[in-house]
Amino acid sequence: MSVQISPLAESLPAFLKQRNYSAIAVLVDANTKRFCYPAIKNSLPKHKIITIRAGEQFKNLATCEAVWQTLTDAEFDRHALLIDLGGGVIGDLGGFCAATYKRGIDFIQIPTTLLAQVDASVGGKLGIDFHGFKNHIGVFKLPEAVLIDTVFFQTLPELELRSGFAEIIKHCLIADAAKWNVIRRRDLDQQNWDDLVAHSVEIKKNIVTQDPNERGIRKILNFGHTLGHALETHFLADPKRRLMHGEAIAAGMIAEAFIANRKGMIETGLLEQIEEYLFSIYGRVTLVESDLEPVLKLTLQDKKNRNGQVRMALLDGPGSCAFDVPVTKAEMSRALDYYRT
Amino acid sequence: MSVQISPLAESLPAFLKQRNYSAIAVLVDANTKRFCYPAIKNSLPKHKIITIRAGEQFKNLATCEAVWQTLTDAEFDRHALLIDLGGGVIGDLGGFCAATYKRGIDFIQIPTTLLAQVDASVGGKLGIDFHGFKNHIGVFKLPEAVLIDTVFFQTLPELELRSGFAEIIKHCLIADAAKWNVIRRRDLDQQNWDDLVAHSVEIKKNIVTQDPNERGIRKILNFGHTLGHALETHFLADPKRRLMHGEAIAAGMIAEAFIANRKGMIETGLLEQIEEYLFSIYGRVTLVESDLEPVLKLTLQDKKNRNGQVRMALLDGPGSCAFDVPVTKAEMSRALDYYRT
Repeated sequence: MSVQISPLAESLPAFLKQRNYSAIAVLVDANTKRFCYPAIKNSLPKHKIITIRAGEQFKNLATCEAVWQTLTDAEFDRHALLIDLGGGVIGDLGGFCAATYKRGIDFIQIPTTLLAQVDASVGGKLGIDFHGFKNHIGVFKLPEAVLIDTVFFQTLPELELRSGFAEIIKHCLIADAAKWNVIRRRDLDQQNWDDLVAHSVEIKKNIVTQDPNERGIRKILNFGHTLGHALETHFLADPKRRLMHGEAIAAGMIAEAFIANRKGMIETGLLEQIEEYLFSIYGRVTLVESDLEPVLKLTLQDKKNRNGQVRMALLDGPGSCAFDVPVTKAEMSRALDYYRT
Repeated sequence: MSVQISPLAESLPAFLKQRNYSAIAVLVDANTKRFCYPAIKNSLPKHKIITIRAGEQFKNLATCEAVWQTLTDAEFDRHALLIDLGGGVIGDLGGFCAATYKRGIDFIQIPTTLLAQVDASVGGKLGIDFHGFKNHIGVFKLPEAVLIDTVFFQTLPELELRSGFAEIIKHCLIADAAKWNVIRRRDLDQQNWDDLVAHSVEIKKNIVTQDPNERGIRKILNFGHTLGHALETHFLADPKRRLMHGEAIAAGMIAEAFIANRKGMIETGLLEQIEEYLFSIYGRVTLVESDLEPVLKLTLQDKKNRNGQVRMALLDGPGSCAFDVPVTKAEMSRALDYYRT
């Protein structure tokens, strides 16, 4: 998997020149069609545009069926290419559709949000939500290439930047203590985004290449995600309380850092640093008593579990993370209580 | 991928002893639940049975959704095992469900028909039909093991034996001329099935291991399948004219042998041998004038095509096969005319 961070007007033609695709389609949603597609249109030969509805709530089988049907109607063969132009939903769903159409055609990821650039695009985790469970159906398959152009997120709303920043923070916390000490002293608008994107992609690519199917070390990328995903899923059904992915992961990182601290894996000083910085950027998600039980139940569906027991990626020092650590329901319950009070 | 041909009472416990699965499910249809499940029940620890409806018409997304839902409701984690106990539909659909549930859990194939034993189970081609197109959505993924017990097909109706035999004939024609000369001198009821199953599995495993994702040599396994699949799909919608897989492939092999002969790739003597033997076993599928155009159109959806041009696996001698041979619509049309008259 090649990852290019450069203007698309260079990277896209360079990629296509090496290949000989029988047909090309670009998957977009209404937003990326309007704001991002113009940036690549002229770099492409004849192609088809496939537009899906924007939003996580459409990351489902029905949308896949529509994409598969469009590819079929256009008589795309196995030598065709799908270009996923968008955020995480486009990348995850488009990648899954490509990986399963005629048992797999090539696809490339052109992530247009900060979150997708530093997280979803470089990892080969593809899939869709299923009956309320996030990323429940899918496959692991690396894209032919990831083409990143930081021009896109410079026009993103601050909310989107903030959401993506949570994964950058995660990468620093699990793998680079020095970088953590740089970013935690800066506010959101003082960060050097070009540098941080390259840094995050390097860390993620390095881990994913070692363990593409998440049998071992790759699990550390899930720090903050066991409780974070449970929170995100829990609030998904309620439009008023719905969380951005980064907000949920920020809350998850605080709660899971607490668990690591109580297990004696990290010092209280590091827990306090994490807490203080994340609250300053993300605020505190309001959790009421009646949220706790459903959130805890959702952790049982986490894909890292074994024999019904939750296993977490937990920090075991600054810039260092362990995985497969068994965590009890009582420990998670205490962590959520700590977070909300 | 390990392939065992031995009694399941030995091979299944031996496989499970090497692993440590968090949960086990057995996928069956009404037939295999009744006739095959008793043969493995006592070799299994605690497990869940998932029953789907029997027949190609249920090899679709709706059935996958039901399987995924059952696994989810039972809180199966990523360390669970799915055992596919049945013919090609169970193996293809069950394998696809396992390969995509939580981005992939282990599965094993226990093929219970001759066809599945010598063809689908050993190959890692997984998937479902989609809006009338066979195996249109799926992935390549090898099972952890294929456990073959020839006791099953000894109770199969002759129709089923005949259908599976077409793939055995194919394996001989593309890879073993001597064996072709053995089987073509025997009627269906004179064949040595244990020997033929082992022979076919060996040929298929050898080819598939060299090229699991069908980039090259594996394509020769598609001899007879370009026109065969088109015929099978064309008649699928009409219950009165529906073909068994093997019947369709037998017709496809005759038509495609004709194309190879007219291209000068095989001698007329071999074409005549093939024709004579296959007609004697399978008879002639009735094709009327109005069937031809839709069948030819269906070949455009074949997964081996490139740039809208049909590419076939064609015999280029006894026991030898070429692949990626471009074939025109006119050539196919002449071949179907030859076949039907």
